[in-house]
Amino acid sequence: MITISFNPDSGQPIYVQIYEYIKAEILSGRLARQEKLPSSRSLASHLQVSRSTVDAAYSQLVSEGYVEAKEKRGYFVNPLTHTQNFPVSQPEKANHHSREKQALPLSCDFNPDAIDTAHFPYSIWKSIGKRQLDNPDNFQMGDPLGDRELRHAISDYLHGSRGVNCSPETIVVGAGLDYLLQMLCILFERKPVIALEDPGYPRARQIFLSGGYRVLDIPLKKNCFDVERLEKTAADICYVTPTHQFPSGSVMPISRRQKLLFWASRKDSRYIIEDDHDSEFRYKGKPIPALQSLDNSQKVIYIGTFSRAVSPAIRMGYMVLPPLLMERYRRRLSGYACPVSRMGQAIMTDFIREGYFEKHLNRMRKIYKGKHDRMIEYITGLFPDGLFDITGDNAGLYIILHYYGALTEEELKKRADKNGIRLRSLREYYANVPADYLPTYLLGFANLEENQIKEGITDLAQKVFSEPKPHLS
Amino acid sequence: MITISFNPDSGQPIYVQIYEYIKAEILSGRLARQEKLPSSRSLASHLQVSRSTVDAAYSQLVSEGYVEAKEKRGYFVNPLTHTQNFPVSQPEKANHHSREKQALPLSCDFNPDAIDTAHFPYSIWKSIGKRQLDNPDNFQMGDPLGDRELRHAISDYLHGSRGVNCSPETIVVGAGLDYLLQMLCILFERKPVIALEDPGYPRARQIFLSGGYRVLDIPLKKNCFDVERLEKTAADICYVTPTHQFPSGSVMPISRRQKLLFWASRKDSRYIIEDDHDSEFRYKGKPIPALQSLDNSQKVIYIGTFSRAVSPAIRMGYMVLPPLLMERYRRRLSGYACPVSRMGQAIMTDFIREGYFEKHLNRMRKIYKGKHDRMIEYITGLFPDGLFDITGDNAGLYIILHYYGALTEEELKKRADKNGIRLRSLREYYANVPADYLPTYLLGFANLEENQIKEGITDLAQKVFSEPKPHLS
Repeated sequence: MITISFNPDSGQPIYVQIYEYIKAEILSGRLARQEKLPSSRSLASHLQVSRSTVDAAYSQLVSEGYVEAKEKRGYFVNPLTHTQNFPVSQPEKANHHSREKQALPLSCDFNPDAIDTAHFPYSIWKSIGKRQLDNPDNFQMGDPLGDRELRHAISDYLHGSRGVNCSPETIVVGAGLDYLLQMLCILFERKPVIALEDPGYPRARQIFLSGGYRVLDIPLKKNCFDVERLEKTAADICYVTPTHQFPSGSVMPISRRQKLLFWASRKDSRYIIEDDHDSEFRYKGKPIPALQSLDNSQKVIYIGTFSRAVSPAIRMGYMVLPPLLMERYRRRLSGYACPVSRMGQAIMTDFIREGYFEKHLNRMRKIYKGKHDRMIEYITGLFPDGLFDITGDNAGLYIILHYYGALTEEELKKRADKNGIRLRSLREYYANVPADYLPTYLLGFANLEENQIKEGITDLAQKVFSEPKPHLS
Repeated sequence: MITISFNPDSGQPIYVQIYEYIKAEILSGRLARQEKLPSSRSLASHLQVSRSTVDAAYSQLVSEGYVEAKEKRGYFVNPLTHTQNFPVSQPEKANHHSREKQALPLSCDFNPDAIDTAHFPYSIWKSIGKRQLDNPDNFQMGDPLGDRELRHAISDYLHGSRGVNCSPETIVVGAGLDYLLQMLCILFERKPVIALEDPGYPRARQIFLSGGYRVLDIPLKKNCFDVERLEKTAADICYVTPTHQFPSGSVMPISRRQKLLFWASRKDSRYIIEDDHDSEFRYKGKPIPALQSLDNSQKVIYIGTFSRAVSPAIRMGYMVLPPLLMERYRRRLSGYACPVSRMGQAIMTDFIREGYFEKHLNRMRKIYKGKHDRMIEYITGLFPDGLFDITGDNAGLYIILHYYGALTEEELKKRADKNGIRLRSLREYYANVPADYLPTYLLGFANLEENQIKEGITDLAQKVFSEPKPHLS
C-alpha cells in the first residue's frame, strides 16, 4: 500500500499530491514496471480521502502515460525507458553576456542608422491608437498580404510621391526589409544567383546567403551599380538602391537605369529588387523617381519601409510585386500570415489616410535638411581643403566623408575611441574592400541636435582628423 | 533655343515644368546625345524666368543623369540607351480575384483554428494600450531578441505553468510560429533532415521545404509520434506536438517522451522542436508538462504563441532555445530585428505582468470547457452508438469525430455543403493518407455559442451523418 504524508501548507490539492508522489515513485524506479497500483477504492480508504480524489490522480497519471488502465484489472505502472541511464551532458555554458559591450562614455555617435524621434507627432499617433484600441476587428485575423485599407493607402502614397506603378493588389505588407527579403528568398524558384552592390547593405547579403543563394558582389563603378559587369555574370536577380545608393549615397543615372531595365527585360527569370530605403529625404530639387516607375516590363520588385519615415520600432514595410510574382505569392505564400499586428496596420492606415504621414515627412525633411546643412557647413569650415571630400550629400540621413591625409584608419579609430566619438567606416559595408580604399566614413546626423553636430564635428576636426604635429626636437 | 509654354494651372513650379519638358525631349530622342543645352543665362532670358529657376531645372536633370555638366563648357545631353527599342512585354494578366471565393451562406463553421474573441478583456487591453501609447521608448529600436521585460514575463509564465526550464536570456520573441520556424531554418547549419508527424501541421512542412530542407513524414503510431521509426531514419531534427498532437489530439505518453529525449541526447546535431500550440487549454486534471521540462540534455527547442490564448491578430510568439543554439542565434542572427512592434511587446508585457493574462486564461478555460462539454453531450446524444467515436477530447479548441458508417467522404462533403456546414477533414492534414483511412473530422467549438453548437451538431446528425434511407419501392 502507498502511504503519503500530505502537506496541508503546500497549497496543492490532495489529488495533485497523490499524483506527484506516485509519479516520483515511478520515475525513481521504486514502483517497478507492470506493478499493479492499489485500487482507487482501497487507496482512498487507506489515505482517508474520497475515492474521486484518487480517481483524479490516477486519471492524470494515465493521461501522461505513467500508468495504464486495464479494463476490469486495474492500474499498472507503464514501462519507462532510459530513466536512470539518461546521459545528462553538460554542454559548454553559453556566454550570455558576450554582446553586452563595455559601456563607453560616448560624447558623439554619428550613427547613420539613427532617426530623429524627438519631432514625431506622438499626440496624433496616440489619438489614432486610442481609437483603434476600441476596434474589435483588430483582434480578428487579417489578410495575409496586409489589410486592404493599408495597402490602398500605401499604393496611393507610392504612386503620388515615388511614381511607383502599383495597386493594393500588388502590395505585400511585412515586418520590415529583412522579413520581406526572407519572403523573396522563398518566392524565387530554383534559387537564382543574386548580384549585390559592393559596398552595400550587409544584411541583405547575409539573408540571401542564409536562404541558400549564391551571391555575386559587384563593385560599384564610379559610385554606381556596374550594369556592364552584371551582364557578364550568371546572375538573374540583382538587389540595388538606385535612388540613394546604400551606403555610397550616389544616384543611379538615367542611362544606367535604362540599361539595367533592359538587362532585366531580356530574360523571363530576371528581376531587379529595388530597395528604396530613404528616398523620402532629398534636400535639393525634386525627388528622384523610383526605378520601378520607369519599368515597362514588370521586372522591378520595389521595397520600402516606414523605418526611417516613422520609426524602425513599428516594424513595417511593404513590397510591390510585378503581376507574375504576385500571382505566385498568392498561390504559394498566402498561407503565411502577415507578421504585422492588425492594430499596428490600422494605426498606420489612419496616419497616412488622414494626411499626417505626408505632413510629418515634409516637416522632417526640413529638420533633416537643417542638420545636414549644418554638418556640411561645419565640415567645410573646420576641415582643411584638399585633405577631405564630401559625397552622398543632399539626401538621406548621413553624408560620406573621404579622408586623404596621412593618418591610417587604425590611428583614426584609436583617436576617435579616445575622444568618445563613434564613427562608421565605409569599410564595414564592403564584401571585398578594394585595394585603393582610403579611409571613408558615414556621418549620420539624424538624431543629433545642431549643437551636438557642431561639437562633434569640431572634435572630429581637432582631435581625430588633425594632422599629427611634427616632433620638435 | 528651347521654347516651353508654361501651364499656370498645373500647380507645378516653373523649374519643374522646364525639367519635365527637357526630360521628355531627351527621352523622345528630339534632344540628341551630346547636344549642348543653352546656357542657363540665355535660356532664362529667353523664357523670361529667373536664372536660378533654370539652374534648378538643370541641376535636377544632372542629378538624375539626363544631362552632364562639363566644367566651363556647359550642359550636355547624356547618351541614353535602349529608349526606343525597349521591349514592352505584356505579361499574362495575373488574376487578382482567384482567391475570392463565392460567398456561401454558412449556417455553421466548425473551424478548428478559430478562437473565441467575444470574451477578451478589451477594456483592460485598451487601458494598457493607452498607457503605452504615451511611452516614447516604444519608438526606439528594441532588443533583436525581443524586449527583455517581455522575455522575463514569458519566462516566468512558461516556468510556472508549463514547467519549462528557461530564462529571459534563452527566449526569442517572434511574429508567430511560422516566423520562428523560418528563423530556425536559417539557424540550423548544414540543413539537417527533418522528421514530421503525419498527420501534422501542413505549414511547418511547407516552411521546411521552402527553406531547402528534406523532410520525412513519419506516420503516427497509435495516434502518437513513432520514435522507433524515427530512430531508423537519417533525421537529426524532429518537429512534434507532444502535449496535444496536432491534429489528432493525443498526448505523447511519458515512455515515448523519454525515448524521444534519449534519441536526441545521443548525437550532438540532434534537436527536438516542441510546438506547444494549445497547451493552455486542458479541461481535465492538471496541465500536461511540456516535453522541454523533462529534458536534461538541452535538446528541446520549445515554441509557443499568443495566437490561441490572446489572438492570432497580434502576431506574437516565442521560442526557448537550448544554450548552444541560443549562442549561435546571438552570434549569427541578432542582426535581424525582432519583427514585433515595441508597442505590441510593451502591451503584452503589462498584460502578463499585471496578472490579466493568467486571469484571462482561467476564464477562457472555463468557457471553452463549457463549449467542449456541450459539443460532446450533443454528439453523444444525437449520434447513434457504434457508428461514431470521439477522440482528442478534454483539451484544445476542437474534438475529433470518427465516422464508421456507410457514407463516403465525398457524399458527406456534398451533404455538408448543401446544408451550409463547413467541416475540416483530417485528410487535409496528411502528407500521405493511410490506406485504412476512414472519414474523420476536426470539429472546432471555440467561436461558436452554445446554441450554435446545439444547432450545428443537430444538423450534422440529421442532415449530414444520418444513414441513407433504404428505398421503399
